[in-house]
Amino acid sequence: MSYDLWYWAGLPGRGEFVRIALEAGGIPYRERGREEGTDVAEQLERYDSTPPYAPPWLDTGELVLAQTANILLYLGDRHGLAPKDAKGKLWVNQLQLTIMDMVAEAHDTHHPIADGAYYEEQKEAAKQAAEQFRGERMPKFFRHFAKTLNGERKFFAGEAWSYADTSFYVLMSGLEFAFPQRMATLRPEYRSLFEHRDRVGELPELQDYLASDRCLPFENGLFRHYEELDASA
Amino acid sequence: MSYDLWYWAGLPGRGEFVRIALEAGGIPYRERGREEGTDVAEQLERYDSTPPYAPPWLDTGELVLAQTANILLYLGDRHGLAPKDAKGKLWVNQLQLTIMDMVAEAHDTHHPIADGAYYEEQKEAAKQAAEQFRGERMPKFFRHFAKTLNGERKFFAGEAWSYADTSFYVLMSGLEFAFPQRMATLRPEYRSLFEHRDRVGELPELQDYLASDRCLPFENGLFRHYEELDASA
Repeated sequence: MSYDLWYWAGLPGRGEFVRIALEAGGIPYRERGREEGTDVAEQLERYDSTPPYAPPWLDTGELVLAQTANILLYLGDRHGLAPKDAKGKLWVNQLQLTIMDMVAEAHDTHHPIADGAYYEEQKEAAKQAAEQFRGERMPKFFRHFAKTLNGERKFFAGEAWSYADTSFYVLMSGLEFAFPQRMATLRPEYRSLFEHRDRVGELPELQDYLASDRCLPFENGLFRHYEELDASA
Repeated sequence: MSYDLWYWAGLPGRGEFVRIALEAGGIPYRERGREEGTDVAEQLERYDSTPPYAPPWLDTGELVLAQTANILLYLGDRHGLAPKDAKGKLWVNQLQLTIMDMVAEAHDTHHPIADGAYYEEQKEAAKQAAEQFRGERMPKFFRHFAKTLNGERKFFAGEAWSYADTSFYVLMSGLEFAFPQRMATLRPEYRSLFEHRDRVGELPELQDYLASDRCLPFENGLFRHYEELDASA
């Protein structure tokens, strides 16, 4: 059995949250959007009864699942990438949704007015949005995540990593790419989050993937680095 | 047993998606944020081990669950507000997440730059964001939802309503409040969506609630009506 993952070629994007969980779990998958001759937009139109709204989606052979957090809920359950008990499962799903909220806000700093318009057309609004994100939102989300890591837990849901941890790794890495100056000033106060990111990045299960060319660099996608959107505060 | 629902008093907001599901399911709950002497922000600080990031959250007595879609996943499972089988459950969760994406985009039309700043400070950006939302995003989401309703199904997941249907009712009602002109021009092409909203609004299970003062009008919250943000196209 092998899953078909569908996502735009050439960038990590929201697909990365699914991809890194599959890789960390040692779960076979095909990256269909990166294959020669496939067309993600065209394929998207082909689903009838339970269609995805947008990539990423996962074709399991039996199900076509979309929405990043929904795909991860399925994979977590089926492949032990989340706790088995209801409490742990819901907690990991809750964290995943909060991670996706922060991802959406990070994206909206460079496209505050419209995803479908060019950055240059919304640069002034982007500067203001990024200032608010760096000043208000990043500390608020970081306080939250630090609180959830406070205590005895090694990972978000206990001694074993879950997909919330791999997603957090992607989030922190994306933020460091987009806002290196701001992340440097946040580091002393939120050291536990940076350590957590490193702990996930050092998982033996992830080393092959992170060194491979399947793991694409952030550039010009969900997370973007523009000099004028970053600052130390 | 009775659930404690925590959400800001005085507005439907994201809490409404949980509230309407509880009401439609005939599930007892207390609206804690609307009780005399409670302070939602203060209460939020009191959770340690699995804290909510923001309202709404649901205290079940055993669990404290946050993130709208996560709360609904729990309620759907436990109270039969979603199909029992994995396929149906994941489909309803997927729809809920897409509904929440559209809700976030509708919110961002009036607060494109920062949720924490006044509307008046971002009015020009809001006009541009609303134009894109009305012109590009609403038709794109509507095409998607219409596709999911296309066929024999009475509700999103079959013959019985699920929480995706009650959420869709809130979404459509909020959009009609915020963008009455645009909704009027979209109606002929997406008649099935308006009929679907009406079908949910006519559920016998919802009549008491919709006529009660527990059901608050939209104003100045997640969905907002500003003349300058609405137009027929």
